[in-house]
Amino acid sequence: MLIYDIITKKKKGLPLTDEEIDFLAQGYLNGEIPDYQVSALLMAIVLNGMDIRETVSLTRAIEESGDRIDLSHLGDTTVDKHSTGGVGDKTTLILAPIVASVGARVAKMSGRGLGHTGGTVDKLESFPGFRTSLNSEEFDSRVMKIGLAVTGQSGNLAPLDKKLYALRDVTATVDSLPLIASSVMGKKLASGARSIVLDVKYGSGAFMKTPEEATKLARIMVDIGKGRGRRVSALITSMEAPLGRFVGNILEVKEAIDALRGRGATDLMEVCLSLATEMVSLSLSMSREEARTRCLGVLEDGSALNKLRQWIAAQGGDGSYVDDPDLFPRASVTVPVTAERAGYITAMDTEAIGAISVALGGGRVKKEDAIDYTAGIEILKKTADRVESGDVIAILHTNKPDAAEDCSARYKQAVSIGEESPAPVRLIFGTVS
Amino acid sequence: MLIYDIITKKKKGLPLTDEEIDFLAQGYLNGEIPDYQVSALLMAIVLNGMDIRETVSLTRAIEESGDRIDLSHLGDTTVDKHSTGGVGDKTTLILAPIVASVGARVAKMSGRGLGHTGGTVDKLESFPGFRTSLNSEEFDSRVMKIGLAVTGQSGNLAPLDKKLYALRDVTATVDSLPLIASSVMGKKLASGARSIVLDVKYGSGAFMKTPEEATKLARIMVDIGKGRGRRVSALITSMEAPLGRFVGNILEVKEAIDALRGRGATDLMEVCLSLATEMVSLSLSMSREEARTRCLGVLEDGSALNKLRQWIAAQGGDGSYVDDPDLFPRASVTVPVTAERAGYITAMDTEAIGAISVALGGGRVKKEDAIDYTAGIEILKKTADRVESGDVIAILHTNKPDAAEDCSARYKQAVSIGEESPAPVRLIFGTVS
Repeated sequence: MLIYDIITKKKKGLPLTDEEIDFLAQGYLNGEIPDYQVSALLMAIVLNGMDIRETVSLTRAIEESGDRIDLSHLGDTTVDKHSTGGVGDKTTLILAPIVASVGARVAKMSGRGLGHTGGTVDKLESFPGFRTSLNSEEFDSRVMKIGLAVTGQSGNLAPLDKKLYALRDVTATVDSLPLIASSVMGKKLASGARSIVLDVKYGSGAFMKTPEEATKLARIMVDIGKGRGRRVSALITSMEAPLGRFVGNILEVKEAIDALRGRGATDLMEVCLSLATEMVSLSLSMSREEARTRCLGVLEDGSALNKLRQWIAAQGGDGSYVDDPDLFPRASVTVPVTAERAGYITAMDTEAIGAISVALGGGRVKKEDAIDYTAGIEILKKTADRVESGDVIAILHTNKPDAAEDCSARYKQAVSIGEESPAPVRLIFGTVS
Repeated sequence: MLIYDIITKKKKGLPLTDEEIDFLAQGYLNGEIPDYQVSALLMAIVLNGMDIRETVSLTRAIEESGDRIDLSHLGDTTVDKHSTGGVGDKTTLILAPIVASVGARVAKMSGRGLGHTGGTVDKLESFPGFRTSLNSEEFDSRVMKIGLAVTGQSGNLAPLDKKLYALRDVTATVDSLPLIASSVMGKKLASGARSIVLDVKYGSGAFMKTPEEATKLARIMVDIGKGRGRRVSALITSMEAPLGRFVGNILEVKEAIDALRGRGATDLMEVCLSLATEMVSLSLSMSREEARTRCLGVLEDGSALNKLRQWIAAQGGDGSYVDDPDLFPRASVTVPVTAERAGYITAMDTEAIGAISVALGGGRVKKEDAIDYTAGIEILKKTADRVESGDVIAILHTNKPDAAEDCSARYKQAVSIGEESPAPVRLIFGTVS
């Protein structure tokens, strides 16, 4: 078998066999097939596609390329969640304690933020002492004891995906449904949870720009997961605006604590409750109605907030920050951004807002970059809100005063103000199961 | 400017600007842009194409990437020829002496054989002592004195093409009209001749499988050359069967000598005379009728044969081989291949026949391979010929007796014999000028 022939086949738009995909996976992983051949093949895949069988095959190759976490001894109720990435997406911090309080076992791998999207691992590390790198015994024992643990991706989980993703990232071959689906599902399957809920985002801050595209991607991922014997469903949720009121690590952690206290923003709570409902319903085999009632119950009686405190402490963090969020450090500079005209906010360029948070110090451009946990954006006015000229629409938090002026101008550009109130956006576009 | 954005643009099917193509060319040549990004871009070009402006721009980048040969002091009558590659294509050995005898100045760069196609440089080196590596003074002085010199590609001519071609060769990105056109024309323009005649081949032994494809490629190349102020035209010629009666270096050289003695095969002579006519007509600004008459004249009066002898000697070769071709060594083994049934030869898989010659020792699979100048194939029966069962249709020449049996079987497979005489093939499909 020759990689040249495999590239030629895909160039002609023909499907690859399982054997060819295995050959590619093994050869690339062991260094026999060089980057320059794989990148040509990836571009051919981006432009000519892969069918569902090929996508399943590549997913399996990714899943099997490294360590696979066996959670079977934790029983049938393990559940994981994956978001395709967004701005202000602190849902894990809120829904994980809810779902664990109801009785499912949340065993979740999370990533760091990159580019305009944030990452749960970074947010959790805002708690002094919090350890996001657990070995498998540490991870298991916490899931068993408190029903919840989150860890960064293990060193040798899905190494084929790591290698492929690094190459896709520099060769403009990220935007392919089969490549995205196999990357996400290969990792999730290797992570071992019995149930998987996917949050597939669409809109100006998401990778998929329309709900239709997001639904297509969700369909592929759900089918892959079911084909491998997992319980999987996906929600299609809006990222036309940042989720909730804050972007930035500590700012979002504080917002999450507030949300578990019952003071969450409507959009944030709706997405969190919908995802939590789906996770509970799948993992505990419960109707959605009952699952939602149970989730609301643990939120209202304070047990979800207690679970957060327990969780932070169980992974080495300082739980007192949950009770007194004012302990978190704050950025040295806050800069209000004002509306330059009266009207309605008609649209928010959410990707641009994510990028502004990065520029303020709150995120990374390159993997190696350090981040400022205190930096970010407080969003006071969102799409459909009425503003008057001079109203403060956001407050930038940063330790880089030099960046503030430029960021303020960029923020104004990212927010469109018009005469008419815009048509409402569907926060939850649909469910794929 | 970022290569990532250039890849993205071409992935979306958008045209690249001249500045973007220059950025790519310079960055790739100086090593700042890695192979894996260029191969992704090349695949996007193969699948999404380039328009004529982009192709001209890439051609110019290739032309200007290294040394450019200045032949202007040799006057206005310098002429070069390029073939897109074929099997049994010994035309340069025949037409160069004809064209030089008529009075044009043949200043030609040639390549070595690779894969199933042969190369003029290898054929010329069949003459003991012949030097195919001339420096620019040696080259010029021979063109001035005898009107003719052929040299291998200089070390630093079109280095961008060398680098791109090596990458295309291993990433299945060879088959793209704009990439082929810019590669050929970039080198030809850098080689400096005022007039350029292209032999664009089609058929089972050529890169382009149909005359329509070949015509498209020719159109692009002619337009590029004219746009750069050269006189250019192209013939579209058939490679549905090997050209002439022999494949292999010494075998073809002897056939070329025979042809200059007036004993050439009809197909070979027609292609040589048509190309020579075009070269003379362009470079000496003569009507095609007059040019053809002049070419036939120098062939018939023996001056073309004299010119060959003079040429071989001028580049250090032993001219006596021209007068006594029996001096050339012969392969130790000759194996007749017989027809297994009676009928008409309906088709020849010319690429396969070229590959058989390679397997007999006559060519290279890899650039570093040594070649056996004596090895090759004598073709006794060609398409449309009538054969009886047991007739010898070809004779294999080799010093590898072990390879003979397999090659004999492969040759039989490459030649189709049917009941009906096939429709005639157009040897010269057309002219693009």
